[in-house]
Amino acid sequence: MNASIKAYDELVTRLKQTALLASCSAVLEWDEQTYLPPDGTSHRADQLALLAGIIHEQATDPEIGNLLHKLEADSIFDQESMESANIREARHEYDRATKLPRRLVEELSKVATLSHHAWVEARKKNRFQDFLPWLEQMIDLKREQASAIGYQGTTAYDALLDGYEPGATSEMIEQAFIPLRNELVSLVSAIKDSGITPDVSILTRKYPVEKQREFSISAAKTIGFNFNAGRLDIAAHPFCSGLGPGDCRLTTRYDEHHFPGAFFGTLHEAGHGIYEQGLCQEHFGTPVGSSTSLGIHESQSRMWENLIGRSRAFWDYFYKPAQNLFSEALSDIDQEDFYRAINDVRPSFIRVEADEVTYNLHIMLRFELEKSLISGDLKPVDLEAVWNEKFTEYFGITPDSSSNGCLQDVHWSAGLIGYFPTYALGNMYAAHFFNAAEKELGDITQLIRKGSFSPLKDWLNENVHRRGKLYRANRLVEVVAGESLSHKPLISQLQSKYSELYNL
Amino acid sequence: MNASIKAYDELVTRLKQTALLASCSAVLEWDEQTYLPPDGTSHRADQLALLAGIIHEQATDPEIGNLLHKLEADSIFDQESMESANIREARHEYDRATKLPRRLVEELSKVATLSHHAWVEARKKNRFQDFLPWLEQMIDLKREQASAIGYQGTTAYDALLDGYEPGATSEMIEQAFIPLRNELVSLVSAIKDSGITPDVSILTRKYPVEKQREFSISAAKTIGFNFNAGRLDIAAHPFCSGLGPGDCRLTTRYDEHHFPGAFFGTLHEAGHGIYEQGLCQEHFGTPVGSSTSLGIHESQSRMWENLIGRSRAFWDYFYKPAQNLFSEALSDIDQEDFYRAINDVRPSFIRVEADEVTYNLHIMLRFELEKSLISGDLKPVDLEAVWNEKFTEYFGITPDSSSNGCLQDVHWSAGLIGYFPTYALGNMYAAHFFNAAEKELGDITQLIRKGSFSPLKDWLNENVHRRGKLYRANRLVEVVAGESLSHKPLISQLQSKYSELYNL
Repeated sequence: MNASIKAYDELVTRLKQTALLASCSAVLEWDEQTYLPPDGTSHRADQLALLAGIIHEQATDPEIGNLLHKLEADSIFDQESMESANIREARHEYDRATKLPRRLVEELSKVATLSHHAWVEARKKNRFQDFLPWLEQMIDLKREQASAIGYQGTTAYDALLDGYEPGATSEMIEQAFIPLRNELVSLVSAIKDSGITPDVSILTRKYPVEKQREFSISAAKTIGFNFNAGRLDIAAHPFCSGLGPGDCRLTTRYDEHHFPGAFFGTLHEAGHGIYEQGLCQEHFGTPVGSSTSLGIHESQSRMWENLIGRSRAFWDYFYKPAQNLFSEALSDIDQEDFYRAINDVRPSFIRVEADEVTYNLHIMLRFELEKSLISGDLKPVDLEAVWNEKFTEYFGITPDSSSNGCLQDVHWSAGLIGYFPTYALGNMYAAHFFNAAEKELGDITQLIRKGSFSPLKDWLNENVHRRGKLYRANRLVEVVAGESLSHKPLISQLQSKYSELYNL
Repeated sequence: MNASIKAYDELVTRLKQTALLASCSAVLEWDEQTYLPPDGTSHRADQLALLAGIIHEQATDPEIGNLLHKLEADSIFDQESMESANIREARHEYDRATKLPRRLVEELSKVATLSHHAWVEARKKNRFQDFLPWLEQMIDLKREQASAIGYQGTTAYDALLDGYEPGATSEMIEQAFIPLRNELVSLVSAIKDSGITPDVSILTRKYPVEKQREFSISAAKTIGFNFNAGRLDIAAHPFCSGLGPGDCRLTTRYDEHHFPGAFFGTLHEAGHGIYEQGLCQEHFGTPVGSSTSLGIHESQSRMWENLIGRSRAFWDYFYKPAQNLFSEALSDIDQEDFYRAINDVRPSFIRVEADEVTYNLHIMLRFELEKSLISGDLKPVDLEAVWNEKFTEYFGITPDSSSNGCLQDVHWSAGLIGYFPTYALGNMYAAHFFNAAEKELGDITQLIRKGSFSPLKDWLNENVHRRGKLYRANRLVEVVAGESLSHKPLISQLQSKYSELYNL
């Protein structure tokens, strides 16, 4: 018993130390995306590689294996205790880190860098065939990685998915995605047939950058992001990075003639940031002090961006200040027209510019394709044709170029396969959480309308954030919402919102 | 022979790896001073302590001792070769790092933090007696440190000085400081007696911050700081940090009603930055790829700030653009009046606000006092009285408060004893280098007047920067200027400039 407690403490000390070092690396990565001078790129790569090496060495130290072995054999902690969760997730990470041969790790890292550069060029030149040899190499390596890590059942893809959404399987995801896809295709088609097309040109009037910044910060602060423990800076590819207790960095980018980009982008990143700030600071560096999964993380960003930020109630509170600040752009615009513009639904080629409804279809397309690439059913050489075919089936339009088609996303070039589904999972989780919050807090839109955001934020802090990795994502949904992951909450929220908007 | 070369390569690899890790730490320190959110302070301290621990472990690895021992015994490299310099300086750093018992290192670090806080409070309250117990403790520890490190001769202070200015001794410094002090006291007195007092109020008119930033960046770029490999940000206590090849960060602070602060501050930091950018990038992480000493570093910042930036020739080139940019402040001001204002000499209490002439007296005062504190001749309890007495002797005015007297500088509270003389050494080195450059380039003021800064910069790159630690500072002066360190070049530059300004 005492020996187990000692082993547990030793494990926690090691996990915390490795996480602390990883958080140093995160500072350097944040700086790389925000302030690094152009000529510093190569030295920064050297710094990050060195830190990655030390972190990997610490994370795969055989002593961690010994401690885990001992703790698993003794098994003195309750099954759903914090300690058991830490042991379970430490095992998960240790196994994933140690199962890969060093050669494969190095090759994956090298090919990812080269393949990423090839992708940048190929996308610029709009030539899928230039990227194809790299994609083939990457798929081979990811198949090898999946088989080294191992998986239950017959779907190799699950080994990769599990790296981003621990415990999730493609079967589980398909059960939600297939009915969701069918419902979404009908909804998109009904919206198209409605003949209603909001005037979105009002969103591309002149919105001065400094005022966008001011308004975004004010909104992020109002919904609950703490700027004493965080910042908002500019980055070409916006992200949120939790650098540790008291330090969470958001980034966005501004376009004077596109209001939604920076504003909803900031709300989105602030949602991630509120999650990071809501983690148990005293458990920093251990699994229970870390976010559950990418899907749960995305549920938080999507909730604030879409369920709250694109709601009528939100603009009941924020439209007047927006009109005052952006008087040149908005003084002649009704709140209702603005609301309709920011909720315009129409099929488009590019995922990151997609609306709330079609967005999930973009994800499903990618999920199906990457799954087939890993199983071997789809050869990389056929990717573009199959992409375009499926895209036409889901959206009713056909990509007019590779860059608007299968070359648009960075993920595959960087080896991030199994990552995409977490975006749509996030939307589904968010819908579950929102309903559960309403059960407890009553009508949330009434609170939002009055600018009262803290009840929802506090509820999320308590029910989602503070739990960290105590539960896996699917179990967390059961515990919090009392139901298993399903497409229903999301589809019913979307149907209800958009039926009203498009007179369906 | 081959074994020696192998040992040397192994040594270099280790030095580079440790420097690379230290450069990660430097990024975190830069971020701490510029962008860290207030609540992130404690986590940042944890991150830096962890990195410091790993760096210390690498730097004191006994294998480095073995390699050095082997290389010193074999001694296959020429005495003034790059390899010999790397071995010599690696030995210097290794010995300094390993000679201190771990307890002392930890105590110094802990007391420095606490003593620094006590100093901040004591300075605010203007109460020397509140800081006194911490100063006593710090002096005891520094005496212990000096004796652990060891020194030739009888002056314990030299062991501390050697940490900032390798190879320098207090005897060497005194030989230059004593005559310099005498000359400066007469010069200050003559200036006072001249009855000429420039109108400095023109420097505190309105200088909009955004324009100060623009002008400072333009000047830093013009004198040769490369902004593709660097940046300028804001920090409460301005500094320059070379984070590695291609990445050097300058900081400054702006006061709308004080032109010289940010402008000469930026020139000063840009001087440091040009040095960092001029180091041999391929030798990054080894002594020959690192700056010679703090004194040589300061020679570069002072040269651009004072010898160039406060020269008439500089403003022949820059005054018109300044007048155009700051039209509200300068449109009715002659260049000559502006030039006189930025070169106003008068005794004042605060070192960091002192002019070019009195500045060195501030340093000498501190040098004499800290030397006596370490020898034990001066007890901390008597510091304030002796400070005020000596200050009156040098400046003809007596500090009106502790904060304007012996409590003004951060250094002693942080344990930085032996650091001050490097500032005045820098001024003397700069004068030597400037004269040597003129011998080769001809009249530099003629070049500056036409905006041609690159000949001087290139000359410094070749003669000073690229040599790194190939020579120790005193030897570098001999090699570059063909003479030993002396007060004469500096005093003659000051006498010539200020005789003309004050009709002496």
